[in-house]
Amino acid sequence: MRKVVVTGCPRANLGDVSKLAEFGVATVHEAIGRTGYLGPGIRPVHLGSRVGGTAVTVVCWPGDNLMIHAAVEQCRPGDMLVVTTTSPTSDGSFGELLATSLQYRGVVGLVTTGGVRDVAELHAMHFPVFSAAVSAQGTVKATAGAVNMPVSINGQRIAPGDAVLADDDGVVAVPRANVGDALSAASARAEKEEATRAALRAGQLGLDRYGLRAVLAQLGVEYVAYDSGRQGP
Amino acid sequence: MRKVVVTGCPRANLGDVSKLAEFGVATVHEAIGRTGYLGPGIRPVHLGSRVGGTAVTVVCWPGDNLMIHAAVEQCRPGDMLVVTTTSPTSDGSFGELLATSLQYRGVVGLVTTGGVRDVAELHAMHFPVFSAAVSAQGTVKATAGAVNMPVSINGQRIAPGDAVLADDDGVVAVPRANVGDALSAASARAEKEEATRAALRAGQLGLDRYGLRAVLAQLGVEYVAYDSGRQGP
Amino acid sequence: MRKVVVTGCPRANLGDVSKLAEFGVATVHEAIGRTGYLGPGIRPVHLGSRVGGTAVTVVCWPGDNLMIHAAVEQCRPGDMLVVTTTSPTSDGSFGELLATSLQYRGVVGLVTTGGVRDVAELHAMHFPVFSAAVSAQGTVKATAGAVNMPVSINGQRIAPGDAVLADDDGVVAVPRANVGDALSAASARAEKEEATRAALRAGQLGLDRYGLRAVLAQLGVEYVAYDSGRQGP
Amino acid sequence: MRKVVVTGCPRANLGDVSKLAEFGVATVHEAIGRTGYLGPGIRPVHLGSRVGGTAVTVVCWPGDNLMIHAAVEQCRPGDMLVVTTTSPTSDGSFGELLATSLQYRGVVGLVTTGGVRDVAELHAMHFPVFSAAVSAQGTVKATAGAVNMPVSINGQRIAPGDAVLADDDGVVAVPRANVGDALSAASARAEKEEATRAALRAGQLGLDRYGLRAVLAQLGVEYVAYDSGRQGP
Amino acid sequence: MRKVVVTGCPRANLGDVSKLAEFGVATVHEAIGRTGYLGPGIRPVHLGSRVGGTAVTVVCWPGDNLMIHAAVEQCRPGDMLVVTTTSPTSDGSFGELLATSLQYRGVVGLVTTGGVRDVAELHAMHFPVFSAAVSAQGTVKATAGAVNMPVSINGQRIAPGDAVLADDDGVVAVPRANVGDALSAASARAEKEEATRAALRAGQLGLDRYGLRAVLAQLGVEYVAYDSGRQGP
Amino acid sequence: MRKVVVTGCPRANLGDVSKLAEFGVATVHEAIGRTGYLGPGIRPVHLGSRVGGTAVTVVCWPGDNLMIHAAVEQCRPGDMLVVTTTSPTSDGSFGELLATSLQYRGVVGLVTTGGVRDVAELHAMHFPVFSAAVSAQGTVKATAGAVNMPVSINGQRIAPGDAVLADDDGVVAVPRANVGDALSAASARAEKEEATRAALRAGQLGLDRYGLRAVLAQLGVEYVAYDSGRQGP
Repeated sequence: MRKVVVTGCPRANLGDVSKLAEFGVATVHEAIGRTGYLGPGIRPVHLGSRVGGTAVTVVCWPGDNLMIHAAVEQCRPGDMLVVTTTSPTSDGSFGELLATSLQYRGVVGLVTTGGVRDVAELHAMHFPVFSAAVSAQGTVKATAGAVNMPVSINGQRIAPGDAVLADDDGVVAVPRANVGDALSAASARAEKEEATRAALRAGQLGLDRYGLRAVLAQLGVEYVAYDSGRQGP
Repeated sequence: MRKVVVTGCPRANLGDVSKLAEFGVATVHEAIGRTGYLGPGIRPVHLGSRVGGTAVTVVCWPGDNLMIHAAVEQCRPGDMLVVTTTSPTSDGSFGELLATSLQYRGVVGLVTTGGVRDVAELHAMHFPVFSAAVSAQGTVKATAGAVNMPVSINGQRIAPGDAVLADDDGVVAVPRANVGDALSAASARAEKEEATRAALRAGQLGLDRYGLRAVLAQLGVEYVAYDSGRQGP
Repeated sequence: MRKVVVTGCPRANLGDVSKLAEFGVATVHEAIGRTGYLGPGIRPVHLGSRVGGTAVTVVCWPGDNLMIHAAVEQCRPGDMLVVTTTSPTSDGSFGELLATSLQYRGVVGLVTTGGVRDVAELHAMHFPVFSAAVSAQGTVKATAGAVNMPVSINGQRIAPGDAVLADDDGVVAVPRANVGDALSAASARAEKEEATRAALRAGQLGLDRYGLRAVLAQLGVEYVAYDSGRQGP
Repeated sequence: MRKVVVTGCPRANLGDVSKLAEFGVATVHEAIGRTGYLGPGIRPVHLGSRVGGTAVTVVCWPGDNLMIHAAVEQCRPGDMLVVTTTSPTSDGSFGELLATSLQYRGVVGLVTTGGVRDVAELHAMHFPVFSAAVSAQGTVKATAGAVNMPVSINGQRIAPGDAVLADDDGVVAVPRANVGDALSAASARAEKEEATRAALRAGQLGLDRYGLRAVLAQLGVEYVAYDSGRQGP
Repeated sequence: MRKVVVTGCPRANLGDVSKLAEFGVATVHEAIGRTGYLGPGIRPVHLGSRVGGTAVTVVCWPGDNLMIHAAVEQCRPGDMLVVTTTSPTSDGSFGELLATSLQYRGVVGLVTTGGVRDVAELHAMHFPVFSAAVSAQGTVKATAGAVNMPVSINGQRIAPGDAVLADDDGVVAVPRANVGDALSAASARAEKEEATRAALRAGQLGLDRYGLRAVLAQLGVEYVAYDSGRQGP
Repeated sequence: MRKVVVTGCPRANLGDVSKLAEFGVATVHEAIGRTGYLGPGIRPVHLGSRVGGTAVTVVCWPGDNLMIHAAVEQCRPGDMLVVTTTSPTSDGSFGELLATSLQYRGVVGLVTTGGVRDVAELHAMHFPVFSAAVSAQGTVKATAGAVNMPVSINGQRIAPGDAVLADDDGVVAVPRANVGDALSAASARAEKEEATRAALRAGQLGLDRYGLRAVLAQLGVEYVAYDSGRQGP
């Protein structure tokens, strides 16, 4: 790992990122070809928020949050801090004091593969956090890492400046260069979903709308009436 | 696994299932001899609901929700959809579009050993889901499975038409044939619990109410005063 | 394991414990030198409470809550019941009937490495529980254990009468003999945190406040501008 | 759960079970339509054995092995003991003394969703065990359960007398009534696999042998040369 | 946590510890009243060793092995190094270079709640390691901890100088003051087990030897013949 | 995810990769700055091999091994197949028939984040596999994925043609462009380790060799004699 803080990273357009966030994580994830999802292990500590920002990425040593402090200085309004570690940890490397600094700088939220603490205070501050754990266990500030180098979470690459969207379904990352396309795709998908929703509300079956009866038949799925002799184990 | 959709399955009486659900999962589980509990791994995404329905069972391939679509058509008012997979998965095979179809058909909720998504939307729709995971990760519709064959979750067998009850304590299944007995047993247990509750509120100890002092004595448990010499490690 | 119920254990001063609890788990954990934290595996079932009491400790056999019943009798106003087992379990060994008894005796909450049930009812009773699991699975009353012997959870020792504090960040234990010192230390830390908070709110960076620029430099962390040639993988 | 020991259960034909075992777990699992596999969580403690027997099933309380003792008496030569519990446990409910009794009765091995101990001694005795854990933690003999009632592990039903096969790939169960068919199917599959093996050894590709080029094309998978412009993420 | 290295700790008698180790972990754990077992999470990397030593205890920060280096100097012939961390980690904080130092000092093995690496080399050196993980991930030497302070693993307290025994069943700790009693108890238990083994080999049932038929009857377990009407669910 | 098979990917020099592999995973991981380690979750099924090859990368759908078949055709002598999935799975997507094809093509081993089966047969074939699970559960061939696109495992990027080294410590990847540098660095580190090993064998302490006494002093670690008053809890 290079020990480096990269400064002056370009960001995705904040207006586009905000619009994209409104579509929700699941819709965007679908719209961009099912990439960028950070997995079911990263969850909102409190349900009910939907937020998007541009990534400032951090790699820390487990049990150490030195590089988060270095990252704060690199943050601008509209950023989302994205923290990972060189090996798994649940330690609470982030709490309300760091959130205070981030709010001062206009940061919209935190995503971390580790733990957070002061979660009651963070909730009161309206600062959304998406993490793998909550832990009061503190960290030290003794080991180098990196800020604004690309990271991978759940097999998904996040570069500084990429769009990072989070809601009750988790977190999805969209490469900076693809935000425009993602916006179009998400918009198209939302429209299509709205039409589907209307049809389903009116009673149409997915079996018919998506042409799945043919798929079932081709796969050899049989329909058997319950009372047509013995039906199961 | 047989590739089959069983149609026209008989259901437990809906009125009975509703009454049973009101007793709550823990009480029913106790009343029927501690069977049918689907385990601590299946949790409500949002706390606060209590619901019961008749099972429509689904077995899917991991990463594939084709058979959920097939199952929708088999659902009737008062049903509860119960989804499992041939091997473990956290993928979000169920979201608000499927829930829209289920609500149209009068389905009361979803239980799954896998994942769900669109959980903010599901909450807004007042559609309760009980799952092992939340995940935005989507699924395909490419592999056969089964609808309305008996399934086993956490060692508990659920046949189509069985009562499935869910609340903040998790999910319990009651065989269709036993719903009547379960209702009596749960009612008796609730009455007994109410008497116990009153006694405990008045200060009686469980030790006395349940005759446990004799059990402790028989097992050789000693009472030692803290200051009677050294008492511990 | 000795099969014993130790009676008449001295407690930390309740007034001090209450004051300590108000500082919150994370602050106290920091103030006392990062000890006593019971780990991220023990979580509040419902977010939003902050409570402290004096420990009555219980060791049960897995799948058995006999000793919890024995422990109830040992509880006094201001106590917190702390339950662990000889091997891991998620079974719901605690529910609203036990909570009814505990409330009668003035107990402020429950901490357990196992499971709880009736969580909707416990919430309605305003009885806070901090547990590793929620499970409707019931327990028997057949095997001996211990009450008010020191226990260890997450490597942290809890003796009867120690202060046990719990909130949305988890649970921390403070040895009875150290509660006074902990109060001073927590108070000092809270004051310091308030000063830091004010500074951070005014825009000071942690990098500067904590002298971390020198640490980064000493560790060889470089600052590199994004556009100064190739910056990353 | 009914508290019962069922006696005199019929068994699958031992000769057939032995022949079936020789095909190996993975081949049999495939041959019978991918059913009966007890999942990746149950592993041989020592690699290198391949064994099959007729199931004697046991349900224990966690931390309790009373019913294993009851089950020993029900065992006959060629049986395989299959143990599960009402809730998860890793406790070592089985060791070399129980294995001594089982070997006396001609039992061929043990399958358990819990833990075993004395594993060095079990290895020296050539008694194969397939378990979810190894643990020295002992159990009590205080709570009722069931012997020779059908159980479900990993969603697969095992009735007494069913064939249970185990090797380095894990454990598979075949219903007693299906053992004959399974033998034919496994034999046919093994023959087919041998032909495939010969073809693959001679250099034929699975793509061609299984007709997968068409599948790839239909799914829209493109072939792109590495040096034909940019090929990566 | 106190930052301290305690020197000159007294040890349990090495001859006694060696004799105790020969009984095996499971037998000793039983003999001393089922205490001291470090749980199923700590496993030998290679099966086949049985070893005992006197504890030198270490608490490290996760991702940091500074204190292991400090501990080496405190080791004497016959010691067993016991390593834990302030929060969970799988990092490989121990490898063949540290083992080389320990072998020079006559240390008999390593027990750790974290990870080890160079496991092929450690095996070739005949240096037994018992760990929760194998990981090539390296650690730093930047954060303070403690040597020879009492630690708790799996709820079991280990003080410096205590006997620590390890084999294929895991690891058990015996307080220094209890080693003599443990030796007598283990010897008595082994003798009793030998008698039981002989009886079981001759065909006696545990049901009879341990008087369990009465227990089953008292618990209401019924014996039902398979063909006496319907026997199952 | 792009549905694509990239052909004709350049590889790291096989001679260099072989030399690098001989240093072992832990040494190489250290030598290249602690990058590229695929984590403690991917383990050899059988201990005792050490192997290196050039990556052919595969992304499959969970429960589906279609793309592994496509990948076989892209393999050349000296390659190592690296398989991951779009979401977690333990299914046995790889067995001895696929290994037969790979051996025909000169492939040296398999690394997978999923499961393998036929592990007895794979061992007999001397085909080393490094996986997260063993499972007899079979897969289908129904869903598209990618071959020879860069993948990320445990946050580490692996591109086609990169060196992938595996032994009992797990798996490490080295970017193709860095193999030469890695070879020099590993060689230098091995030399340094040999010198250290000799010194440690002669009794030098790591405390002295690495200058750690100063670090301990600076961190405030005190040395306290056991008998100098009370030393701990």
